Amino acid sequence: MYRTHNCGELRMEHVGQTVTLSGWVQGSRDKGFMMWIDLRDRYGITQLFFNENSTDADLFTKARTLGREYVVKVTGKVLERSSKTNKIETGDIEIEVSELEILNESLTPPFTIADDSDGGDDLRMKYRYLDIRRNPVKNKLMFRSKMAVETRKYLSDQNFCEVETPFLIKSTPEGARDFVVPSRMNAGQFYALPQSPQTFKQLLMVGGMDRYFQIVKCFRDEDLRSDRQPEFTQIDCEMAFVTQEEILQTFEGLTKYLFKTILGKELSDFPRMSYDKAMKLYGSDKPDTRFDMTFVELNDIAQGKGFGVFDSAELVVGINAKGQAGEYSNKDIKNLTAWLQRPQIGAKGLVYVKFEENGSIKSSVGKFFSDDDLKVWGEKMGAEKGDMLLILSGETDKVRSQLNDLRLEMGDRMGLKDPNQYNPLWVVDFPLLEWDEDSNRFHAMHHPFTAPKKEDVANMLNGDHETMKALRADAYDLVLNGSEIGGGSIRIHDRTLQAKNFKLLGFTEEEAQEQFGFLMGAFEYGAPPHGGIAFGFDRLCAVMNGETSIRDFIAFPKNNQGRDVMIDGPAKISQEQLNELFLQSTAPTETES
Amino acid sequence: MYRTHNCGELRMEHVGQTVTLSGWVQGSRDKGFMMWIDLRDRYGITQLFFNENSTDADLFTKARTLGREYVVKVTGKVLERSSKTNKIETGDIEIEVSELEILNESLTPPFTIADDSDGGDDLRMKYRYLDIRRNPVKNKLMFRSKMAVETRKYLSDQNFCEVETPFLIKSTPEGARDFVVPSRMNAGQFYALPQSPQTFKQLLMVGGMDRYFQIVKCFRDEDLRSDRQPEFTQIDCEMAFVTQEEILQTFEGLTKYLFKTILGKELSDFPRMSYDKAMKLYGSDKPDTRFDMTFVELNDIAQGKGFGVFDSAELVVGINAKGQAGEYSNKDIKNLTAWLQRPQIGAKGLVYVKFEENGSIKSSVGKFFSDDDLKVWGEKMGAEKGDMLLILSGETDKVRSQLNDLRLEMGDRMGLKDPNQYNPLWVVDFPLLEWDEDSNRFHAMHHPFTAPKKEDVANMLNGDHETMKALRADAYDLVLNGSEIGGGSIRIHDRTLQAKNFKLLGFTEEEAQEQFGFLMGAFEYGAPPHGGIAFGFDRLCAVMNGETSIRDFIAFPKNNQGRDVMIDGPAKISQEQLNELFLQSTAPTETES
Repeated sequence: MYRTHNCGELRMEHVGQTVTLSGWVQGSRDKGFMMWIDLRDRYGITQLFFNENSTDADLFTKARTLGREYVVKVTGKVLERSSKTNKIETGDIEIEVSELEILNESLTPPFTIADDSDGGDDLRMKYRYLDIRRNPVKNKLMFRSKMAVETRKYLSDQNFCEVETPFLIKSTPEGARDFVVPSRMNAGQFYALPQSPQTFKQLLMVGGMDRYFQIVKCFRDEDLRSDRQPEFTQIDCEMAFVTQEEILQTFEGLTKYLFKTILGKELSDFPRMSYDKAMKLYGSDKPDTRFDMTFVELNDIAQGKGFGVFDSAELVVGINAKGQAGEYSNKDIKNLTAWLQRPQIGAKGLVYVKFEENGSIKSSVGKFFSDDDLKVWGEKMGAEKGDMLLILSGETDKVRSQLNDLRLEMGDRMGLKDPNQYNPLWVVDFPLLEWDEDSNRFHAMHHPFTAPKKEDVANMLNGDHETMKALRADAYDLVLNGSEIGGGSIRIHDRTLQAKNFKLLGFTEEEAQEQFGFLMGAFEYGAPPHGGIAFGFDRLCAVMNGETSIRDFIAFPKNNQGRDVMIDGPAKISQEQLNELFLQSTAPTETES
Repeated sequence: MYRTHNCGELRMEHVGQTVTLSGWVQGSRDKGFMMWIDLRDRYGITQLFFNENSTDADLFTKARTLGREYVVKVTGKVLERSSKTNKIETGDIEIEVSELEILNESLTPPFTIADDSDGGDDLRMKYRYLDIRRNPVKNKLMFRSKMAVETRKYLSDQNFCEVETPFLIKSTPEGARDFVVPSRMNAGQFYALPQSPQTFKQLLMVGGMDRYFQIVKCFRDEDLRSDRQPEFTQIDCEMAFVTQEEILQTFEGLTKYLFKTILGKELSDFPRMSYDKAMKLYGSDKPDTRFDMTFVELNDIAQGKGFGVFDSAELVVGINAKGQAGEYSNKDIKNLTAWLQRPQIGAKGLVYVKFEENGSIKSSVGKFFSDDDLKVWGEKMGAEKGDMLLILSGETDKVRSQLNDLRLEMGDRMGLKDPNQYNPLWVVDFPLLEWDEDSNRFHAMHHPFTAPKKEDVANMLNGDHETMKALRADAYDLVLNGSEIGGGSIRIHDRTLQAKNFKLLGFTEEEAQEQFGFLMGAFEYGAPPHGGIAFGFDRLCAVMNGETSIRDFIAFPKNNQGRDVMIDGPAKISQEQLNELFLQSTAPTETES
């Protein structure tokens, strides 16, 4: 037996007992005649004590050889410490060691196993098994595990049944790019890894499972960023005989439950906002509502005054940066403008209006507008002395997106994003379809299985092109502090409507049948009304911790090239494997050097 | 709102209430002036009642149009039934319907949605979404869900932390064949889908996670049988600072907990048997111990009497089929012999000895052995009047395997496999390595990460070839009624020993480093002693239900060609997809007809 207790559990009540502990050497202090070693495991740290007077000489010598991260097993008596500490939970006691066994040695780790590591990202990822020993990473993995436990508890209590859906499915070109898996037994054919269990959970509803959930890995072969991974985890849910309202209530309930149980925070009822309003007020379907600074449209008062940039713009819109007039020099404004003009944002320019504390007004468009004109703007935008208006103009979609970036940036600069504040928001009434000018076709705003609102069904079946643009769906996103943490919709459960949707999305009848014939077939055998939602589990964990990167909530994440640098994968496979799969590589051959 | 209650919850206490239900039409009985419809959902069946006198005429007409599996929403008053039934939980009440909405129609299902379906396997799989509506399938999926809930509860309570390990890893030629996933971002390279999270869970132990578990999908590209699927689910566990004894106790505890909580059965402490003993007594490392009929070796008394077949055999071994002497005519024996000689088993012949009720002895080898000789066999094998000895001979491994097949067959024929009896067994002390004559090399008996027993470590590092064959491991299987439901081992946590093991298994140093360098590297940074176990979750569910096939415990299983016949996958992918992945298909082109 390696231990009678773990390194986090000994207290005053254990004083006098003989115990055995195993763990890692966190560090030691050697005072010559006395030595202390901190022994660490997942549960905590316990102080070991060696005393020249009472400790066996060989044992003392052996203890001196222990390096950082050595794995040891010790037996000894629990003593009350002379100088207690409340920095660790076992701070009242220490162990006077009488037996010491080295279970394994350790090379010096490439970075220190401490809360603030000196290891860079690359090193941490290569030695992820050491990184996980650090509290911040370990705690995030434990947090995630607890989130999964509580999610399952809440949903099970609500009659949701967890059903595993298959990972080896069929590739469908709609949506993101699939990872595919060549089949050995079916020459020339491929499985695909699921981007989500969407069709299977719908079939479970057709199958009468009524309430389904799954915490499940999904896969997308997309180019990566810090908050994207090729494999990610969803809390995936579906309900039959359900309205949008019941879904929102159920999953608002889940979210509140997780916040209360895990963070001890009570959330108030979640506000709701239509997609149109979110776009108009925030230029985004995932607004960070921890701060206001909402958009004010100025077309009616800023156009027709001879300023060509505005006059030719589809939209003139601004935000009021409260109290910032004195904070921004001409140079600061210039830098901010340059920031907006970077290709990532692509604004053409920035118009500012400063309402100075002394009552004067300064603006980059003072030549075109009188102080009285600018005062009208200020009134509409709620400006007071000291405020600064930031105004963009151009094509509606683009300028909203640009002003959204600017608003979020100003929120950061002005310290308006309180990391301890959680502002959830349901964004509802999404359009069903989105017209894409580039490809000259409709895209599904949520996904191809989303139903139009009941009142829009007739329009969808019979309407013209412009009607289609106006169709609304019972689709909804749950947004938290500007991150989309969940999204879903009421689904189509009728073959005719589903066929029409595929047609609108540019599928030929043959393509629709080949790819989704099984689903449309299922709709002919008594498919119930149904709908659902999926939460991005990695992101939910990150957002609840006030973090933007999801990587440390994943035990073994991949880098931006989709590589696991620890195992050094992906890797080449043998020619025999390729042959068995009826494949030949066309990758450029590396020249060996 | 589609319902105020589900179809399984209304009782006498609800009588008089107006309720709304939604569900599927299970069937109807039309008596002309009165009609009853059974409405079904996941939770049960509720009887709907229509009465010509009290029901609106249009409603009555509409109700008559409802076909099987139509989806309807009804509102009505809960009445006490005149003739109650206890066949369904809602048998005390019925609903007098006042409103009826058809939510969706249904074609006539290709098989009846009933406990005993008239659908064959192929049809059931193609329309799996209808098959799932049937109670036997639905209940198995719910059973599985409950098993997962209770497994997680037990392990969480024992401080196990569920950690998700990656699905996109690296291919390793050891073990079964990998499914691979071509990487678009790393030309010419492939991920592999994990056959198990083995190395990752070991790295989590190196990382100090202490106790890990995961209910996780695993993948093996092997030829399929009814109890094998290309994707299957494991309860995967690992513990640090642990001995074999603690692992056995922990997971015997889990198994007992699942039986008690889910089946209401108390299991006694699990017996243990060494691998050697299991092979000697049962010819199998997964003996069905619900019945005895253990092997008795007869070399000492059956050889040297002039019967060449026995004299030249490495092993002469038999079982005593109690009370079967009178049951087997010469023709029956001939058929049994033919059954044994099929290529699947490959026995050369069968020797029988019948101890007839009248005291006479009949045997196929009466020419070679006197009645006195045969009585000595009978004594050794505990034969009484009416018993029949069945004896095989030949090379030890083969003959044991053949006699195991025969013993299991006789167990079936004699009705000795009580489906309500559960006999768990730990098989322990497995050999570390297995010599394979064909490939002239060692194979890992469990897997390449299994440690030799402590007392065998020195032998492993320094011994000769014969010594290697005798190495024993702290490896263990949990067997239940003849099925292996779990297996595991104490792992190597030392680089030198791991390198030696790879060498014994035929890896060059370069291959070992390329494939498992990350693991051996991790062993140099303070790897703790650790070990674990994995349960086959699909099989555990099946065995606990007394079933041999795992298919109905999987929502969407694949057939023996690895196909999902419902979605018709795998399928071809586009040339564009292949190009992006740097691949070309070499599959024979189908001729279109």
